[in-house]
Amino acid sequence: MSTVKVAICQMIVTDNKMKNIVKAEEMIVKASEKGAKLVVLPEMFNCPYDKKYFAEFAESYPCGCTIKMLSKVSKENKIYLIGGSIPERDSEGRIYNSSFIFDSNGNLIGKHRKIHLFDIDIEGKIKFKESDTLHGGNDITVFNTEYGKIGVAICYDIRFPELIRLMVLNGAEIIVIPAAFNMTTGPAHWETLFKCRALDNQVYMLGCAPARNVNAFYISYGNSIITDPWGCVIGRLGEEEGILIQDLNLDRIKRVRAELPLLKHRRTDVY
Amino acid sequence: MSTVKVAICQMIVTDNKMKNIVKAEEMIVKASEKGAKLVVLPEMFNCPYDKKYFAEFAESYPCGCTIKMLSKVSKENKIYLIGGSIPERDSEGRIYNSSFIFDSNGNLIGKHRKIHLFDIDIEGKIKFKESDTLHGGNDITVFNTEYGKIGVAICYDIRFPELIRLMVLNGAEIIVIPAAFNMTTGPAHWETLFKCRALDNQVYMLGCAPARNVNAFYISYGNSIITDPWGCVIGRLGEEEGILIQDLNLDRIKRVRAELPLLKHRRTDVY
Repeated sequence: MSTVKVAICQMIVTDNKMKNIVKAEEMIVKASEKGAKLVVLPEMFNCPYDKKYFAEFAESYPCGCTIKMLSKVSKENKIYLIGGSIPERDSEGRIYNSSFIFDSNGNLIGKHRKIHLFDIDIEGKIKFKESDTLHGGNDITVFNTEYGKIGVAICYDIRFPELIRLMVLNGAEIIVIPAAFNMTTGPAHWETLFKCRALDNQVYMLGCAPARNVNAFYISYGNSIITDPWGCVIGRLGEEEGILIQDLNLDRIKRVRAELPLLKHRRTDVY
Repeated sequence: MSTVKVAICQMIVTDNKMKNIVKAEEMIVKASEKGAKLVVLPEMFNCPYDKKYFAEFAESYPCGCTIKMLSKVSKENKIYLIGGSIPERDSEGRIYNSSFIFDSNGNLIGKHRKIHLFDIDIEGKIKFKESDTLHGGNDITVFNTEYGKIGVAICYDIRFPELIRLMVLNGAEIIVIPAAFNMTTGPAHWETLFKCRALDNQVYMLGCAPARNVNAFYISYGNSIITDPWGCVIGRLGEEEGILIQDLNLDRIKRVRAELPLLKHRRTDVY
């Protein structure tokens, strides 16, 4: 049986960047000590999800304490590391919500810039306009590992079935979503989206959220989750800080696809 | 507030075609008496979901007792009628799993031939190969009504997000799925699919299943369901025969789409 042990680090994010970096590193090391070979951090793990902080906390590869920590810790622990996301500044000063991805030698093997910006205005509940301060990426992100192809998208990206399907058609068998749903959209949609994307595409879906911080401007739902290729929830956290460790049976992907050949049954002559 | 009262007729299907037709008509009339203006029947409501019956029970428009009943009862009751599905024979003898759709004057306003054929083989659970006896349709089905555009797809079709999205891009705001999930796929996937297609596309999704008949070759899960544009389950039956009546607030579609503009946020430059 071919398996990979994964870890999702559901950490509390504060308005102190250095504290966030230290906390992330501690959790990654702990996950590695427990045998994880693929470790995931949450969306905006070095910065509150609040537009007033994005410019101040932003980094540009290869500079910045956050990026350097990610490279160092992935190499030291010999793990694949999906670095959640951080604000990234490009050479022209534009800021993105970006995930930096490192292999077990500390080399950058992928970077995902959140494609779909989160602009929402639910009366009496929540209002957030990411596009006020951030730019959207234009590329889908799928990369090779010894455990097969892995795809990364960020939070609101998961709401677009076209994107997830495209990642799967590009070979992704594990899809990692650093994300921070809130107390309105989380209870309503979080679990359903992870279950349905997994069962539609017959892949593992991993969602890594910040732990709930009720003092933050934007309160994360938490509930980091892993769904399997049949759409079952096989791992889940609550609202508190914690590490979710789970073995993924990679043979299960092939088996589910043989039993219910959804990807083969697509009618590309119709759509 | 703009609303439409809909009815889902979860009927027991037997191997007696005439009994099935009589039962369907009785339930449609009862639904109409309760004020329903859009009435839905289940997949294969005139015929057991068992390939040995398809050829014998098939009809060709405008002939056949089932098709004539549907036209007559929609006119007499002044309702839109989504005629679940029946085996349909074309002029060359091919058989399809088809839904005949009538307006309140008894005129055929749409026909959907199930596009995706259900070929499944889950070890020790269920094996079914629809493509042994049926042909697949090639067209998406969306039609105008005084309640807005309505789309129809059949059962396994719902598993393909591409198709449902295309129906929505063609204007469908209510999507009706006559369907017969089984005792393996039903508990695992039925509710998740209806919730997720509704919330991804911000439409009403109506699923109409046959009632559970434990003596049948293929045992229907039942659990007819209605989900709203926010992905909430707003109506549901159990396993037994029954009519689910529900008012759909059509204004809610616009409101959800204004609050969370998913369809506007699609990145068609990326996919």
